[in-house]
Amino acid sequence: MGSKRRFRFDYTGVRVLDMDVSIHFYTEVLGMELVGRGRTDETKGEWAQLKSKGSSHLLELNWYDENSPFYSKYSHGEELDHLCFSYDFKRGEFDRLLKEVGAKGIKIVAGPHVIGDWKLVYISDPNGIWIELGERI
Amino acid sequence: MGSKRRFRFDYTGVRVLDMDVSIHFYTEVLGMELVGRGRTDETKGEWAQLKSKGSSHLLELNWYDENSPFYSKYSHGEELDHLCFSYDFKRGEFDRLLKEVGAKGIKIVAGPHVIGDWKLVYISDPNGIWIELGERI
Repeated sequence: MGSKRRFRFDYTGVRVLDMDVSIHFYTEVLGMELVGRGRTDETKGEWAQLKSKGSSHLLELNWYDENSPFYSKYSHGEELDHLCFSYDFKRGEFDRLLKEVGAKGIKIVAGPHVIGDWKLVYISDPNGIWIELGERI
Repeated sequence: MGSKRRFRFDYTGVRVLDMDVSIHFYTEVLGMELVGRGRTDETKGEWAQLKSKGSSHLLELNWYDENSPFYSKYSHGEELDHLCFSYDFKRGEFDRLLKEVGAKGIKIVAGPHVIGDWKLVYISDPNGIWIELGERI
């Protein structure tokens, strides 16, 4: 587009089915910090932004009222493959986490798989979004 | 999950229909830098990772072969609301960009809308993913 502009990738916006349940998941399970939450009259919706330790990239949660022009029935598609979160696991901690996840009723949707140097597992957020967690092996 | 772990949000992984066309879009239109590209035997797929100026968060493009266990027909869902990219536009430059986008055959899927202090437009990437671009007004 004319001279090449180097845009900054600021946030990833996902749609959620229930704002409170989704904020709880990202803060309690993944340890993100809620940096803002509000309503937007123009979209008849709510938003929340979260950030994680060591990154300035935001995760934006979007919820739309049924009479919002942005509303459509929540359906699962293929555009969003997964969101990846990392953590420096101590020895044995990743396997413990897999058991804790199951005990908390959080669904493991794929794995554990070994891909290259990584042991990977995919859990589901409350909206069915795949979250990749991994341990370097 | 036990003691609260603060994970780092490392990348956003999207699925693409054509890797070359998608890499071209994110490098040429949004000015991202390609930091890696490869095949993964375990997934029968290809991946590419891109980063933008001023952010360490990666955009991962994922493509799967039709006989990959990760393959499914590419359908549009609601999980991924949009990806947001920012740029410090000079006076009048945002309006010029909107014209350039149209001239290049890049589809504007929504806007321009004024929401709060922002003039926002949503363009489509080659896979139908909404990209938000905005100018503070």
